[in-house]
Amino acid sequence: MLGDKETPMSDSEFEIINKYFARQVSGSKNIILGIGDDAAVLSTSTDKQLVVSIDTLISGVHFPAQTSAADIAWKALAVNLSDLAAMGAEPAWFTLALSLPEVDHEWLAAFSKSLADISSAYCIPLVGGDTTRGALSITIQVAGHVQPGGALLRSGARAGDQIFVTGNIGDAALGLYALQQQFERTEEVVYLLERLNRPQPRIDLGQRLSDVASACIDISDGLFADLAHILKASDVGACLQQDHIPLSSAAERFLSDKPNLLASIYNRGDDYELCFCVPAEKCTQIKAIEKQSGCRLTHIGEIVEGNELQVFDAGNKLLDLGNDNYDHFAGKV
Amino acid sequence: MLGDKETPMSDSEFEIINKYFARQVSGSKNIILGIGDDAAVLSTSTDKQLVVSIDTLISGVHFPAQTSAADIAWKALAVNLSDLAAMGAEPAWFTLALSLPEVDHEWLAAFSKSLADISSAYCIPLVGGDTTRGALSITIQVAGHVQPGGALLRSGARAGDQIFVTGNIGDAALGLYALQQQFERTEEVVYLLERLNRPQPRIDLGQRLSDVASACIDISDGLFADLAHILKASDVGACLQQDHIPLSSAAERFLSDKPNLLASIYNRGDDYELCFCVPAEKCTQIKAIEKQSGCRLTHIGEIVEGNELQVFDAGNKLLDLGNDNYDHFAGKV
Repeated sequence: MLGDKETPMSDSEFEIINKYFARQVSGSKNIILGIGDDAAVLSTSTDKQLVVSIDTLISGVHFPAQTSAADIAWKALAVNLSDLAAMGAEPAWFTLALSLPEVDHEWLAAFSKSLADISSAYCIPLVGGDTTRGALSITIQVAGHVQPGGALLRSGARAGDQIFVTGNIGDAALGLYALQQQFERTEEVVYLLERLNRPQPRIDLGQRLSDVASACIDISDGLFADLAHILKASDVGACLQQDHIPLSSAAERFLSDKPNLLASIYNRGDDYELCFCVPAEKCTQIKAIEKQSGCRLTHIGEIVEGNELQVFDAGNKLLDLGNDNYDHFAGKV
Repeated sequence: MLGDKETPMSDSEFEIINKYFARQVSGSKNIILGIGDDAAVLSTSTDKQLVVSIDTLISGVHFPAQTSAADIAWKALAVNLSDLAAMGAEPAWFTLALSLPEVDHEWLAAFSKSLADISSAYCIPLVGGDTTRGALSITIQVAGHVQPGGALLRSGARAGDQIFVTGNIGDAALGLYALQQQFERTEEVVYLLERLNRPQPRIDLGQRLSDVASACIDISDGLFADLAHILKASDVGACLQQDHIPLSSAAERFLSDKPNLLASIYNRGDDYELCFCVPAEKCTQIKAIEKQSGCRLTHIGEIVEGNELQVFDAGNKLLDLGNDNYDHFAGKV
């Protein structure tokens, strides 16, 4: 037989795609043609710019191997939506490339149901996909719209801008720690695991910030590392107050008998909150945005001249951030 | 240490992306912001529709493990471009998600150089990417433009339409066979391997067909299987003349002492030629398109009522296509 390159499996790619992924968000007026042809056909908004981002999640690298199919699906789209949020973009559509070691209908049913849930929640329809046999890996490309020139970049921060974060920092890192240490599922551990497995991309807030923020990034790799990207792109430095960095009450309770973990959470990611800078004259708008969005916004520091990230503790003592704080990719390909 | 989920490697993701993938095709006026922020920002053509497709290539599944980095890069983008060709679309931009088991600079240099080569050749810039550590796998999402309503679909074939293919069929399958059987690198084997490893997506031709063809698909999984997709989507049948299906002279020479392989090549893919249908009254335009594009176009049969694919040999005897010819996905997830 010619090119017998693949072992037959019990289900065909075509059937899998149709069975599990051919749902579409209702009211997706931009979709001329969805799944099923060589490509999808979409109408574009004539007065908008398109924002696109692609991210891969690999089992055992980006999520623990025991993560449920439903949580994996949620997170795979959420981390991509978080990139759109950081750009101030409105979600438009996404494509999915799914690699699976085998056809597991229970897994696929849970995965596709959860993917449809987050797809509906954020009004972003799946328009095309590819399923292949291989190690478990999920690649999603998202597209969104911004007003021309309205994208929130990393490069716009200026000395004097104030630095804010959304929500709380460190929950996901503590959730992962609790999972790895096989902690009992107390109320706070359940909360921290929810934050690890079900990030809530700040889509609404990102759009509200587009006229206000000078720079923005989502916290995927750790607050210090991601803020460092803004500093590098904007050629500025920053001063942070460690005790201003917001923690959830679950994180505070969790840390109460493990205080040595506190220093690590700023270098660990997966929170998918936004870190953004606001020119001093626009800071008066932050309270209104916080109220409209229902999302806590916390002032944590200020952009300064130079190119250093300096973090002061409650006693105004400069913390030693070590050597690796600027390279959050050190542990990744 | 919190969430020590990844073993450090010698190079950071950021450095890899910047070093190897931050090149851009000159004159990409649609790119407002390329690689380096949370997402890319693109202007869209106001009078066009967007066509998008995503495809993953996995080592050992979609290409032999010994395939060179340069050939892998070429093929990964080419197979995606082939989807754009099948839609009659003009290439616009692409994103890349690359999983690598380790940082191998020699491999990355060859891969990125070849990717830049095909990117330039087809005027499709890389606008965003993600690199992760994992089994070797390449996911590319391409986007292209068509005139509103101008996309070539699988569903437009009608009884009486004539069926054509571009180029030659079966070269890639024979190349793979020669590779697996470790044949000597004769002139024809070299040619067949080139066809396997360096497919030439029919971008120019696809666009020329957009006003002429009633349906179109690219031959990724085998002529019979891919034509069957047109038949299913269009709810029609087809009659083919086997001896009309074009073979390269290299394939003819290769098959001369292995005639039993002939029947298999129609069920094996990787040719990335186009198979398309043309209403009878428009067939007069085919000669001109062939001349303009410099690409051989061959009439191989006709669309008929019903839903069967019937193939006749030179003696007008109906061939038995077996059971699996309609499900080219049987060997894939």
